[in-house]
Amino acid sequence: MGRTDERAYGRAGVDLDAAARTMDLITREVASTYTPGVLRGLGAFGGLFELPAGMRRPVLAASTDGVGTKTVLARRYAAEPGVLEGIGRDLVNHCVNDVLVQGATPLFFLDYVASERLEPDAVAALVRGVASACREAGMALLGGETAEMPGVYREGEFDLAGTIVGVVERDEVVDGSRVVPGDAVLGLPSGGLQTNGFSLARRALEGRLDEVLPDGTPVWRALLAEHRSFLPAVRPLLASRLVKAMAHVTGGGLPGNVPRSLPPGTGVRLERGAWEVPPVFDLIRSAGGVAEAEMYDVFNMGLGFVVVVAADDAAAALSLAPGSRVVGEVVAGAGVELA
Amino acid sequence: MGRTDERAYGRAGVDLDAAARTMDLITREVASTYTPGVLRGLGAFGGLFELPAGMRRPVLAASTDGVGTKTVLARRYAAEPGVLEGIGRDLVNHCVNDVLVQGATPLFFLDYVASERLEPDAVAALVRGVASACREAGMALLGGETAEMPGVYREGEFDLAGTIVGVVERDEVVDGSRVVPGDAVLGLPSGGLQTNGFSLARRALEGRLDEVLPDGTPVWRALLAEHRSFLPAVRPLLASRLVKAMAHVTGGGLPGNVPRSLPPGTGVRLERGAWEVPPVFDLIRSAGGVAEAEMYDVFNMGLGFVVVVAADDAAAALSLAPGSRVVGEVVAGAGVELA
Repeated sequence: MGRTDERAYGRAGVDLDAAARTMDLITREVASTYTPGVLRGLGAFGGLFELPAGMRRPVLAASTDGVGTKTVLARRYAAEPGVLEGIGRDLVNHCVNDVLVQGATPLFFLDYVASERLEPDAVAALVRGVASACREAGMALLGGETAEMPGVYREGEFDLAGTIVGVVERDEVVDGSRVVPGDAVLGLPSGGLQTNGFSLARRALEGRLDEVLPDGTPVWRALLAEHRSFLPAVRPLLASRLVKAMAHVTGGGLPGNVPRSLPPGTGVRLERGAWEVPPVFDLIRSAGGVAEAEMYDVFNMGLGFVVVVAADDAAAALSLAPGSRVVGEVVAGAGVELA
Repeated sequence: MGRTDERAYGRAGVDLDAAARTMDLITREVASTYTPGVLRGLGAFGGLFELPAGMRRPVLAASTDGVGTKTVLARRYAAEPGVLEGIGRDLVNHCVNDVLVQGATPLFFLDYVASERLEPDAVAALVRGVASACREAGMALLGGETAEMPGVYREGEFDLAGTIVGVVERDEVVDGSRVVPGDAVLGLPSGGLQTNGFSLARRALEGRLDEVLPDGTPVWRALLAEHRSFLPAVRPLLASRLVKAMAHVTGGGLPGNVPRSLPPGTGVRLERGAWEVPPVFDLIRSAGGVAEAEMYDVFNMGLGFVVVVAADDAAAALSLAPGSRVVGEVVAGAGVELA
């Protein structure tokens, strides 16, 4: 149902007035995400979603994720416009990309917000961000849970996690099996850290968050840059059936994510100059004295999403996916080589 | 895929050795839950699950939940056998019941474990509990996320949340619409607090957790009694098509949960002597000086699940659902009346 009155504020210890205000604030946001699949008015405990009609062999793709310690930085700048909404959007976009790599498009989302103490405005901002990213992905915010747990979280801190369910036809699952050496590797820019590497970044940049980067962006804002959804860029590619494999570059960076989308015996060679490394990564490296290899093991280094297509299809794929560029090729071997 | 190597340990700041040990410990547990719907070997980011063949109009039922501050008590007694596993089972069973009320049976589950610092043995115990309850529900543990967030959680504390996806035929959704005054209300015993009311219970019983109840059970163990899954009792009832409405008695107790399963203009009258109130509730009331009404607003008071059937079907329903008994009837009006 996705009705906000399912959100479980009922645990003992919850400030029910604050909870009621929060519910009022988010009810409209949640309802604004409802797609035709959502069944309203049936029961009131879990959310109900009818699968799109006419699918041959529907396969569900599901993923649970959190936003990690990006929340700690967001809390510090929570008074700045859009910061908490951004964290909500980060979470959803991360999850969208995680099922997208298998060729699945989003059906619905459920969020989990837990904190030391519910601050209605903060919860509303987080859910507003979640809802806006759901709307953009054409996905219903079907349910959620909001928990106040004073003995568990540090004062004022919160955690945000979510689960996405998408769907793909059985014979359209993108599984990497057709990848061969010589295939082209396309990259899509991340624009920043996305949601990974924040513990290292905060350590490296402690005390320098309010400095300004050469392009005029404050460091803290560059760090909080939104986790991009690659659905708009990749959807036309999927429809074209040109895609052989995809990887979402999250924790573990390129070496930790690209290889697991490839069949055994294949790796990739990436041309380092082929994409832009956002300036915030240079600052993290120099300020934190972080070795180059560690940078690539922890951060996406500017490549947020990777798509493998046949070399002959590269030009067509580039024209279908706005913002993409060729960043390397598939090679015999294993792992990621940076040339 | 549900493969444990999807569990996102990759965030900066994670102790990768500890994470590797945890992964070893839980890999087999996760694999042991795989049902035929799980697609193995396809991609490696999200989990893939093929819907059962032959459904006419499949409707997905989804719910996200946590275990609340039951975790705080569990941590205090974490060295006792089965305590952390029990928390994992609590989470799953809670979610199973939440989709069961709409007539849905479980397909798959995803868990989210976050803590101040990953303790591999503790994470493994939690996931072992999650996996065992998934197996009993015939449900795959399709994915999960494990996050270490030192700045967010208090020292040694953790949170555990999860998402269930179940399925039901469109015309078999249980929605309460056929409920009329005179229908019989059947109850299933909770055996304890399930996962609600722990902040109040801990306040009321602080310093008395190691006392022993009249039946010989230590107070802490009575508090940690498992959140029962009502799937085994209710499944035969669902197959019989006798069920008109169901409620899972969670946060908000009977008044907070039973009415929302009923159509407008109907309420229930429950006969207080018709079910057993476990002794731990008497102790909470007397030790904490908690008013009777508040007890019913916060706790399930021994009734974990409620099923509405036609009065004429009550005898048949009782024989199909082991442990059930008639606890009241539907009346014209609204809300819950305790007679």
